[in-house]
Amino acid sequence: MDTQVRSGLLALLAAHEYGSNEAWLTDQRGRYTGRADVMVVPDSVASVQKLMRYCFTHGINVTPQGGNTGLCGGAVPEGGVLLNLSRLNRIRQVSVADNALTAEAGCVLHDVQQAAQAAGRLFPLSLASEGSCQIGGNIACNAGGLNVVRYGTMRDLVLGLEVVLPDGTLVSHLSPLHKNTSGYDLKHLFIGSEGTLGVITAATLKLFARPQTVATAWVGVADIDEAVRLLTVVQGTFAERLHSFELVGGAALSLSAAFCGLPEPLDAPWHILLELGDSLVCGDLGDRLAACLLEAGFDHAVLAQSERERLELWKLREHISAAQRGLGVSIKHDIAVPVTRVAEFVARCGADLQRRYRGINIIVFGHLGDGSLHYNTFLPDILSHEAYAYEDAVNETVYRHVLDCGGTVAAEHGIGRVKNHWLPSVRTAAEIACMRAVKAHLDPKNLMNPGKLLPPADGEAV
Amino acid sequence: MDTQVRSGLLALLAAHEYGSNEAWLTDQRGRYTGRADVMVVPDSVASVQKLMRYCFTHGINVTPQGGNTGLCGGAVPEGGVLLNLSRLNRIRQVSVADNALTAEAGCVLHDVQQAAQAAGRLFPLSLASEGSCQIGGNIACNAGGLNVVRYGTMRDLVLGLEVVLPDGTLVSHLSPLHKNTSGYDLKHLFIGSEGTLGVITAATLKLFARPQTVATAWVGVADIDEAVRLLTVVQGTFAERLHSFELVGGAALSLSAAFCGLPEPLDAPWHILLELGDSLVCGDLGDRLAACLLEAGFDHAVLAQSERERLELWKLREHISAAQRGLGVSIKHDIAVPVTRVAEFVARCGADLQRRYRGINIIVFGHLGDGSLHYNTFLPDILSHEAYAYEDAVNETVYRHVLDCGGTVAAEHGIGRVKNHWLPSVRTAAEIACMRAVKAHLDPKNLMNPGKLLPPADGEAV
Repeated sequence: MDTQVRSGLLALLAAHEYGSNEAWLTDQRGRYTGRADVMVVPDSVASVQKLMRYCFTHGINVTPQGGNTGLCGGAVPEGGVLLNLSRLNRIRQVSVADNALTAEAGCVLHDVQQAAQAAGRLFPLSLASEGSCQIGGNIACNAGGLNVVRYGTMRDLVLGLEVVLPDGTLVSHLSPLHKNTSGYDLKHLFIGSEGTLGVITAATLKLFARPQTVATAWVGVADIDEAVRLLTVVQGTFAERLHSFELVGGAALSLSAAFCGLPEPLDAPWHILLELGDSLVCGDLGDRLAACLLEAGFDHAVLAQSERERLELWKLREHISAAQRGLGVSIKHDIAVPVTRVAEFVARCGADLQRRYRGINIIVFGHLGDGSLHYNTFLPDILSHEAYAYEDAVNETVYRHVLDCGGTVAAEHGIGRVKNHWLPSVRTAAEIACMRAVKAHLDPKNLMNPGKLLPPADGEAV
Repeated sequence: MDTQVRSGLLALLAAHEYGSNEAWLTDQRGRYTGRADVMVVPDSVASVQKLMRYCFTHGINVTPQGGNTGLCGGAVPEGGVLLNLSRLNRIRQVSVADNALTAEAGCVLHDVQQAAQAAGRLFPLSLASEGSCQIGGNIACNAGGLNVVRYGTMRDLVLGLEVVLPDGTLVSHLSPLHKNTSGYDLKHLFIGSEGTLGVITAATLKLFARPQTVATAWVGVADIDEAVRLLTVVQGTFAERLHSFELVGGAALSLSAAFCGLPEPLDAPWHILLELGDSLVCGDLGDRLAACLLEAGFDHAVLAQSERERLELWKLREHISAAQRGLGVSIKHDIAVPVTRVAEFVARCGADLQRRYRGINIIVFGHLGDGSLHYNTFLPDILSHEAYAYEDAVNETVYRHVLDCGGTVAAEHGIGRVKNHWLPSVRTAAEIACMRAVKAHLDPKNLMNPGKLLPPADGEAV
């Protein structure tokens, strides 16, 4: 960036230039380090507008960034301005009667959960990085997490958005309207757009009643088909009370139990951690769950008898990722297939990978309630960064089976720069052409987070 | 349309040309009669593709139509082809484990509800015309109805869409994926697009557990603020169990009670009909509801003690529209404001209208749980079609108050041809420009349902 342009930018915003950008230039997994001419951290929407107008005029790339917890490299800048939203972090409004809360993009997810709790309500999005990820990033990536089976993904939790377009125009719809059918719903273009269409500066989010009663069970099953049968029974009986239904493979459990220093709750090839929540005080919810499990033949199960036991069961689930790091470097996949085809996918893909890479270690866990899996593969004897040399080949195998089972290569982590060349495998040419038309209209100079989400156009440098 | 082009079209499709198109050329309310050169009723997606390719090549307008129950004239053709989807009416698949059902566009909503019920599940969309409206139209208009407070609008119930684009290209995503973050979510452009971007031919829809226990209460309140307080209490206590929360004004109740030959359940200025549903058999749900109402000071209430009593309460709510027809012609408004501003809107708008039209009769009812109201006005002494001469002036007053209260002029009926000149009051110039860019990309010849949804461009004939 030209020194004069850079000075003009900083003068305009009176922005702090952070001493070292290093931490913000590298993604959480440490796989990509980008570069930025300048990092700006504006503290008002008006400043974001000024910045965007300036960059639009001078043709400067802009990469919006939240908590930088993304797993697909979507927030790693490749030159130009790194626009960090951390200082736009006010909760603007909480309205219990509207069941809505308005938060700025830089609010940490945990702080939004706390603001809802302080008002006696629940903001249900919950995921591993909730202590540092930000609402704007959650929306830009359409985050998922542990409660999707009940509350949906971030997309389902957004009532209204405030967005600064690439040319600096503000579009603000923060009224907590639950019904509004007024032309094409452009809000949904920005949700999941990973910073390529504009800058999300605030959102009005849905709130829910808080659970007063929780019942948690750990169930051992012989195979995934049995797990799906369990899901059908529990959903049919308890409906929206089911807020988590997590699959844990036997190997994943053993790793996590050793890591946590906790006993394995029971011995089985596959495990389900399921939790019901009820807004009423229901003394018999646990008994009803136990009766339902027994009646349906799921007698290899434990119910948490105390909050301590409940937290221990969740600890086993939540520490799988940390525990598996001890195995070395893995090639990870954030995938989803229809619930009814998870078993088929796991069987076929596992057999194929074993055939190609004898002794490969596959750690499977995830959100079976919505068909999304974390499918992590450790190559035998190649457990350093050298494993990434095999990434394309392993992806090729895994994703082919995902697609054969009617699934998607990107369930809840987004596309970023890791998967944009895979987009044509899940979206048709006509769809990608439509995405490009939207992008060309809103961002005619291709300044917003270039190289992310959309695959390179013909003739464009990769 | 040129005779040869017309013959070519009919030969291509071997389509039945309906004897008289009259019934399909006029909207349900009898306000608009359009014209079509030909009405085609294809029975396969391949035929729809052929039709669209032919029309694209020959520059023929196409108006897609479902059950023709829309209230904004969106399915009334203005020349060219009237494409009726009624014969695409198969339920393609029901999967309980995926909690999903795939239905073709021409399926009547009631038939989809029945197919879900036959599988032991619930498809929750419910509205007055469910016996004749079709799924494709419900999606194209993002229909709402009685259960939005719990299950959302049609938009929230769609997992995947199959769409034929204006040039005949098929885009099909009918896999029941509950998580998929793969580029811009184009599905949401088609939902609510009212036939202006392509032809929806099928959809994969979400299913839910069926309620086993229902508790229904009719509550009298002094004013709308009290009704909103009741909503807050009931949602905070019963959470997702609350599936309907309907507001009925005193005048609306009197009309309906006389029409139905039923007594008014109680005497009050405003009334709430609320219903809880639970997937479990809960003997004490009604008792808990009664206790909750009493504790919060809502003692002017009746609980349905039998299914017959429950149906009578609902009959009073559902017959308001029919009952008010006896008053003559009304100017109707399908609006929404944030729940917390409904009282303010009703007070301000009512006073303003009374000042302008002394003696005006205002019938207010609707879905207070999501802030959407049916706000119908009867001018004194002008109760024939002559009332429509005042429509623009009355709309101007009503919509100004709606906008002042942060609301929308189109909650659940869509825009159609009735409200497209109002779109700029709820969407900014930048948003409408983006909508036009999407439209220009997908429908470059402006053949799809022209004149609907988007306001006329500068210089375009209205």
